[in-house]
Amino acid sequence: MAKARASKTITPKAQVKKLPAAGRKLKIGLVGYGTVGRSVAKILCQDTAGPLVLTHIFNRNIAKKKDASLPAHIRWTENIADVLSSDVDVVVELIGGLDPAGDWVRRALRAGKSVVTANKLLICEAGPELVDLARQMGKRLEFGASVAGGIPAIIGIQEGLAGDRLHKIAGILNGTCNFILTKMESSGTSFDAALKEAQQLGYAEADPSADVDGMDARAKLVILTQAGLRLRVRPEQIPCRSISSIAAVDFMYARDLNSTIRQISLAEKTVQRKATSTRVRLAAAVQPALIPAASLMAHAQGSQNIVTATGEYAGKMIFSGYGAGGDPTAVAVVSDLYTIARSAGAPPEALPGAAETPDEVSGDFTVPHYLRFVVRDRPGIVAALATILAHYQISIDALLQKPGFPHSALSFVMTLEACDSAVLRQALEEIAQLDFHVEPPLCLPIFLD
Amino acid sequence: MAKARASKTITPKAQVKKLPAAGRKLKIGLVGYGTVGRSVAKILCQDTAGPLVLTHIFNRNIAKKKDASLPAHIRWTENIADVLSSDVDVVVELIGGLDPAGDWVRRALRAGKSVVTANKLLICEAGPELVDLARQMGKRLEFGASVAGGIPAIIGIQEGLAGDRLHKIAGILNGTCNFILTKMESSGTSFDAALKEAQQLGYAEADPSADVDGMDARAKLVILTQAGLRLRVRPEQIPCRSISSIAAVDFMYARDLNSTIRQISLAEKTVQRKATSTRVRLAAAVQPALIPAASLMAHAQGSQNIVTATGEYAGKMIFSGYGAGGDPTAVAVVSDLYTIARSAGAPPEALPGAAETPDEVSGDFTVPHYLRFVVRDRPGIVAALATILAHYQISIDALLQKPGFPHSALSFVMTLEACDSAVLRQALEEIAQLDFHVEPPLCLPIFLD
Repeated sequence: MAKARASKTITPKAQVKKLPAAGRKLKIGLVGYGTVGRSVAKILCQDTAGPLVLTHIFNRNIAKKKDASLPAHIRWTENIADVLSSDVDVVVELIGGLDPAGDWVRRALRAGKSVVTANKLLICEAGPELVDLARQMGKRLEFGASVAGGIPAIIGIQEGLAGDRLHKIAGILNGTCNFILTKMESSGTSFDAALKEAQQLGYAEADPSADVDGMDARAKLVILTQAGLRLRVRPEQIPCRSISSIAAVDFMYARDLNSTIRQISLAEKTVQRKATSTRVRLAAAVQPALIPAASLMAHAQGSQNIVTATGEYAGKMIFSGYGAGGDPTAVAVVSDLYTIARSAGAPPEALPGAAETPDEVSGDFTVPHYLRFVVRDRPGIVAALATILAHYQISIDALLQKPGFPHSALSFVMTLEACDSAVLRQALEEIAQLDFHVEPPLCLPIFLD
Repeated sequence: MAKARASKTITPKAQVKKLPAAGRKLKIGLVGYGTVGRSVAKILCQDTAGPLVLTHIFNRNIAKKKDASLPAHIRWTENIADVLSSDVDVVVELIGGLDPAGDWVRRALRAGKSVVTANKLLICEAGPELVDLARQMGKRLEFGASVAGGIPAIIGIQEGLAGDRLHKIAGILNGTCNFILTKMESSGTSFDAALKEAQQLGYAEADPSADVDGMDARAKLVILTQAGLRLRVRPEQIPCRSISSIAAVDFMYARDLNSTIRQISLAEKTVQRKATSTRVRLAAAVQPALIPAASLMAHAQGSQNIVTATGEYAGKMIFSGYGAGGDPTAVAVVSDLYTIARSAGAPPEALPGAAETPDEVSGDFTVPHYLRFVVRDRPGIVAALATILAHYQISIDALLQKPGFPHSALSFVMTLEACDSAVLRQALEEIAQLDFHVEPPLCLPIFLD
């Protein structure tokens, strides 16, 4: 009775919407037929009942790439115009790099096509501009594959946690570094030997600097900072420190500290609200760091990735999985294609509250630190170091020295209580002038959380 | 030059789409003003620049609930018709249970409103039907908050991994059980004492059976099975086993096995392809299980949740975070509201390849097992047990007996090599007939992965 009465008060104003015509498939043009491209083609051609159909494949020297096992209707071409002027609905850009990828993506969008890309450099450099262009054209730009491959971090952070106010993003975003560091951890090998093995296994490039020096992870951190913290930052504003200065002995000392070493990408937003203004600070860096051995970050083995996002309401969320490789990256690409199919290619509504530019960007954090020295032993070394640190009001937490090093190259470690890494850097400049160093001191932040 | 030439070949067919009118906010009606409802109201009212505005709050005895700190424009009511017949765009259903929530959600959809719900029972029972109804009405039904609160597991699995073929979903989906089991693990306390503490802290209800006996987690597993494995299953097809039979001694033995005990919800799909047909089997259960102490699952402490999804291409993905509580659940609700705002309330396209009904649903897995006996000691007990197990072709892996138990109630453990749990159940029925048991044997699967 109560129910029936209540029902009558409802004004039925909804119209039954006509469902979209079934059977109209999204035509996909693949630009770039390397490892990821082949995986994308494989997945698309296996699911013939789905809403996606692969119609064009572009690559240089296409004759060598042509795969007879794929359906005969696919047009293989080495002329990008064949794809851009075709009737494909979505262009999947997998060639990487800024040029010509940026030009081709813009042309695809202007030609009225949606775009899916795995290109972290391009999105890091021009993501907001390209999203705006897509929106102007009434089309979509999706880039879930540009960060952490098979891990749905972008959609998880940007949409699944849209209701939170995120203030911290941290992650292991480079599988090559993680492979090298977990190899050094498990086998006690040197950085050079672990890098060589990674290169032999195809996990590292002949020129590994983009990976080991942090620029690859930094591009991903810029994208996650935009998606999660809603802050626009340029990659060159974020300092990178190489993992190449990590030695086997650092893992020995780390173990004594119940810790391990990983390349950590970290971005932390603080908002200072004053009477008449707010000031937004972003602290961000990509660097090797000590982390507790029991932490989830330490669980990322080999080429795995982890992304964590910390919000005001939901606390800390963790996403983990395989961040690279043909198949995981292809899953991210094909998932983005499904997103476009579900939205019939239309862009999402522009919501108020766009990303802002922080008032300050810094690479410094106030955290405990690990210092490793290699010295020619003599009395007074610790006193000299302690004097300089004390001058900067920095407190020593512990001093560790393993037995068995030669006096000519003695390796020992200090851990410091939490201090601003900018202040510590000044102290280390003074310390570097002392005459007993055999190699430059190594300084790593200790991230406990 | 090359660029300029290529550009000319593109036919510019896209029209610049007019952007939707800015400033039109989605009006939200909140149905249910308990812990989650208050958190949702708080988040909505803090973000006044956003696309969402809270206009109605329904609860029984609303006079007692009214919160003067919320904006004066909000209409407080104890008559559901005031919400359903209003101009709200989205009804947020937070009253839980099947009745009257199901009726109200259907009426809201029929009245042309989108619906966001955290109601796992309703979605478990009627999710596909309600999604269809929403689609018919041209509206959306979102239920990200129905599973694992603040963890964006549904969007992560359903959209972020849409490009994969998932075959396994596993998780820790009930924070109450995880609180109790991690408490037993860390303090050596009994189940009853840990439950009592959970109740005192508000983590467990006065009647804890839905949590500890597994029905709460099962409803979530049904929803994840639908979203990730694309299989429709009824909750009563999935067996639940209670954690209440776990004793402090089980954590002692688990530790000797480098393991711990958690309530694990597991669903595994296998597809047998034959010449003329395919057969889909779903193995699914909610039960306490031994897991390696070093596994990620064991990392879920207190009321945390974990969801893992394993696919053919991307491997294993892990989502972890706070699965319950007012604020994390509210984040999931508000994130769903943003999803609706971004789509301007329109439903996603219906893609081909709907969820199917499996040919077989079973609660049995072929895995190693842990058996714990409490017996009146006498010679021949192990021989009697081993004889029955051998009869069923079940191999014993190890036998553990800690010192110090009285002969009248001696507790020992057997681990078994991988065997079908259905076969083991038959063996245990015979074993239960033996006359030396002080309490019924406990059998737990061991999930190594």
